Amino acid sequence: MASYKLSQISTTAPEKIDKDETKARLEDILGELDDLQNLLYAEHKHSLLVVLQGMDASGKDGVIRDVFGKMNPLGVKVQPFKAPTAEEADHDFLWRIHQHAPAKGMVQVFNRSHYEDVLVQRVHKWVDEETIYRRFKAINAFEQLLAQHNNTYVLKFYLHVSQEAQMQRLEERTHDPRKMWKYNEKDFAEAKLFKKYWKAYEDVFKHCSKIPWIIVPADHNWYKEYLIAKTVRDTLKSFKMKFPKLEVGKK
Amino acid sequence: MASYKLSQISTTAPEKIDKDETKARLEDILGELDDLQNLLYAEHKHSLLVVLQGMDASGKDGVIRDVFGKMNPLGVKVQPFKAPTAEEADHDFLWRIHQHAPAKGMVQVFNRSHYEDVLVQRVHKWVDEETIYRRFKAINAFEQLLAQHNNTYVLKFYLHVSQEAQMQRLEERTHDPRKMWKYNEKDFAEAKLFKKYWKAYEDVFKHCSKIPWIIVPADHNWYKEYLIAKTVRDTLKSFKMKFPKLEVGKK
Repeated sequence: MASYKLSQISTTAPEKIDKDETKARLEDILGELDDLQNLLYAEHKHSLLVVLQGMDASGKDGVIRDVFGKMNPLGVKVQPFKAPTAEEADHDFLWRIHQHAPAKGMVQVFNRSHYEDVLVQRVHKWVDEETIYRRFKAINAFEQLLAQHNNTYVLKFYLHVSQEAQMQRLEERTHDPRKMWKYNEKDFAEAKLFKKYWKAYEDVFKHCSKIPWIIVPADHNWYKEYLIAKTVRDTLKSFKMKFPKLEVGKK
Repeated sequence: MASYKLSQISTTAPEKIDKDETKARLEDILGELDDLQNLLYAEHKHSLLVVLQGMDASGKDGVIRDVFGKMNPLGVKVQPFKAPTAEEADHDFLWRIHQHAPAKGMVQVFNRSHYEDVLVQRVHKWVDEETIYRRFKAINAFEQLLAQHNNTYVLKFYLHVSQEAQMQRLEERTHDPRKMWKYNEKDFAEAKLFKKYWKAYEDVFKHCSKIPWIIVPADHNWYKEYLIAKTVRDTLKSFKMKFPKLEVGKK
């Protein structure tokens, strides 16, 4: 079992890392990603599921726009998970999630995910602790199902933002005309539960790390995006994919 | 682990059971079922998943028509599972199944199911044995997910038909005008694999009985239907359901 103390993990880019240089490297990686995603689609053998979790304003939307938005949308799907609809709530918590599991050849990005059911629901005590622990088990089994039965690689990113950076970004939404559409009164109430969310996340990392979590310092957008793009690039490369050869008249 | 030898289990109604009397009792049970299903729908707390498995011509369609067809279709759904489509084959084998898991208050009938992936695919050696055993585990985890996380009761029926009865029914399809639409040339080839299917079923009963199988002697339709209707009735009764009380102005 992995054990983390979020208060002891940096939310900022390492000091020795140069911002401009990193941004230039990100551009190179995005070019590689475009090619690799095309190959993934062409080979039709693997699939990639990217789970993005993090507090409000931790920058999930930004990663989707600036990293996954650079790939061919034919092979990339993004699914946000908000409060369950009435129909979704009438099923087990993984029902709506499973429907969006990636098909072979596809990249699927989850903006929030099944982990909300062991985070927001736990922090607000909408479900009892026994249910939470049963859900941890169900989540592990579900992720193994995808990995073992459809060759799906699951990448789980936690966008690790400091309380100060979060508050600053939420404040921006109250006066920046281009960000007002993101404003949600409730976010400020949720932000007050920061410590409780950290605790709930630490427990997720402890109990749901059969497929490991990647903790991404998220106070600097440029570093966060670089790290995620690089991880996705390295993951796709590790598949050692090849374009299928022409097979004429073999079937 | 449950252990079964299908060759030692009767495919016929017990001799002491009277046909006419049983048919009359079935009628009574169908009336009860109608009420119970209405209560299930009204209470909106439980759901019931009925898995129907059995060889070709074991009478799955008949049960659906004569038992589940007597309930209110508003609260009963039937889903047949045939050879996977291209889109389904691009996902894990439980992807298409999970989508049809019953919502709260509903009865869902599977005409064939996820078990085909450890039966037909195994008998024809389309997948290796390691995969089959991994699928057994995934199936158990999936059924637990439904049971534990959506209050779904899973009833698994195996319609146990003799080789002789099966062959007779398949023959009927070649000359009875009302049954010809069911004729499929391939069924006769599959019927030759009878013993291999029994062996594959025995292994399913052994490895996937966390939620137990109910083996239904299926050579006599009247007895098969009675037994299934009775089991469903007893199961629904065991939920001890109540109509919700009127709550005015409480929310």
